[in-house]
Amino acid sequence: MGEQVRIYEVGPRDGLQNERAPITTAHKLAMVDRLLAAGLQHLELTSFVNPKAVPMMADAAEIVRHVRQNAPQAHAMALVFNERGFDNAVEAGCRAVGLVLIVSDSLSRSNSGRTPDEWLDSYRAIITRAKQTGVWVRGYVAGAWVCPFEGQMPQERVLRYADFLYEQGVDELCPTDPIGHAHPAQVGALCELFVGRYGAEKLAVHFHDTQAMGLANALAALNAGVRRFDTSIGGLGGCPFAPGAAGNLATEDLVFMLHKMGYETGIRFEALWDVVRFLEPLMGRPIGGRIRAWYESRQTSPQETGA
Amino acid sequence: MGEQVRIYEVGPRDGLQNERAPITTAHKLAMVDRLLAAGLQHLELTSFVNPKAVPMMADAAEIVRHVRQNAPQAHAMALVFNERGFDNAVEAGCRAVGLVLIVSDSLSRSNSGRTPDEWLDSYRAIITRAKQTGVWVRGYVAGAWVCPFEGQMPQERVLRYADFLYEQGVDELCPTDPIGHAHPAQVGALCELFVGRYGAEKLAVHFHDTQAMGLANALAALNAGVRRFDTSIGGLGGCPFAPGAAGNLATEDLVFMLHKMGYETGIRFEALWDVVRFLEPLMGRPIGGRIRAWYESRQTSPQETGA
Repeated sequence: MGEQVRIYEVGPRDGLQNERAPITTAHKLAMVDRLLAAGLQHLELTSFVNPKAVPMMADAAEIVRHVRQNAPQAHAMALVFNERGFDNAVEAGCRAVGLVLIVSDSLSRSNSGRTPDEWLDSYRAIITRAKQTGVWVRGYVAGAWVCPFEGQMPQERVLRYADFLYEQGVDELCPTDPIGHAHPAQVGALCELFVGRYGAEKLAVHFHDTQAMGLANALAALNAGVRRFDTSIGGLGGCPFAPGAAGNLATEDLVFMLHKMGYETGIRFEALWDVVRFLEPLMGRPIGGRIRAWYESRQTSPQETGA
Repeated sequence: MGEQVRIYEVGPRDGLQNERAPITTAHKLAMVDRLLAAGLQHLELTSFVNPKAVPMMADAAEIVRHVRQNAPQAHAMALVFNERGFDNAVEAGCRAVGLVLIVSDSLSRSNSGRTPDEWLDSYRAIITRAKQTGVWVRGYVAGAWVCPFEGQMPQERVLRYADFLYEQGVDELCPTDPIGHAHPAQVGALCELFVGRYGAEKLAVHFHDTQAMGLANALAALNAGVRRFDTSIGGLGGCPFAPGAAGNLATEDLVFMLHKMGYETGIRFEALWDVVRFLEPLMGRPIGGRIRAWYESRQTSPQETGA
């Protein structure tokens, strides 16, 4: 048995969040069922936000209830941004929530109108309530490497917000590179620091593949001891109106590399393509990770199917 | 000043070798001039082989003479397979040759009709003559990780042929992954072994990007201490009749990552795209590394152009 790596599938939330294709709730449920069938048991499932702000996530409660009912063993996480969102998530049956704390003032303000410091009271209250009620909490340290406005983030600033989340008692910290501009040297350095400071068992990482360094960044994190990764089926998560603004690191790309390297994920690589084939007509454009061209042209052999 | 990394541009040889597009000698000379202008001073330029076997390389002498005349400072390497090829290369002015020794019996036999052991006498004679005449020699340890017929290569087999080349006195060893099926754990392990055994100053690596792990493999080699990499402009080198059989790791992808990580290559990233734009109409199909979509859609900023 190889060493275990945990994959968080973020396609249903980060992948679809800004999607303009006409994805219905029924489509999402079918997508999630296929993801679960492929062995993805850790999901960033949805977001409890104002449906006027993010119409794609208006069906959050229905999605959560479906998974609670059909896959009670799954670790299905929902993003929440205030106590009302937390209440709604818990009422729908959610037992894991995520809190996004953007490190850079300018990126945070452009996303939410608030600086990260102005989020702390709200997140402190949510974490307190989560701990009282046994709800698992992830804290995203978002934009931990690069801000599109301010460039590279100073380490002491990243640590200030990561420390805050850690000290409040989150179950997991997840530094992210939402624009996909981090490089492996930065990733390796911060991951080593985080592993030493918080422990690998409390750490996940989240990469986008904009500059085609997604797998190299994942390798840098892996080498630093990280064993939990966010990925998105088909590499969803790019903005369809900004060609080249690639999405999340694709689940199929990372799972394939991990399996080749001898890690175990519990995921059936072949079944990931069922999800890709299901989603592609709905998205109305080609999707799929960077290994898709190889995958579709390959000579089938057990070694090379990721089995 | 960052640490130096040397890039060998293999587009003119490995990139074009199996190309069926109607690339003329004049095209190749214009390609090479643009590569040199972009700062690529180390080239795998051509191959002195039977023109009936490899018609694309029939103009080897002319290409070598052009570079000797117009860029005498360039390190321009030609593949040779026997003493006659060596003579022809030297007569054209070539001062650096490469010898391809395929590790696996079955791959070697399918390529040349001979096992690697059956190549040793010929290569011993060439290396002896090269050393007598001051010609620089690279030994390719080809298929050092994976053989398409035999799977993973046993380490003792790889070392047997690498040791042979090293003991004969080659100036550089270059393990290759010609089918692009190696993974970072294998790459890192063999590179560490090679760096310890032969020294990083005698080592280059050569990856193909078939399974999208080219950059991750390069990172693994870099972490092991390797500072010389083969790449191909535009990711050329795939077989145009096998979609998905991606070519070499693209020069623009690796140079961009290296520059972001703080390494110096002497290459002007922007100028690489001049070469891509020149070649693409000749190839009659889209070319370009995996960062091309991002590159073409990016907001121009000094930080993000690889400058």
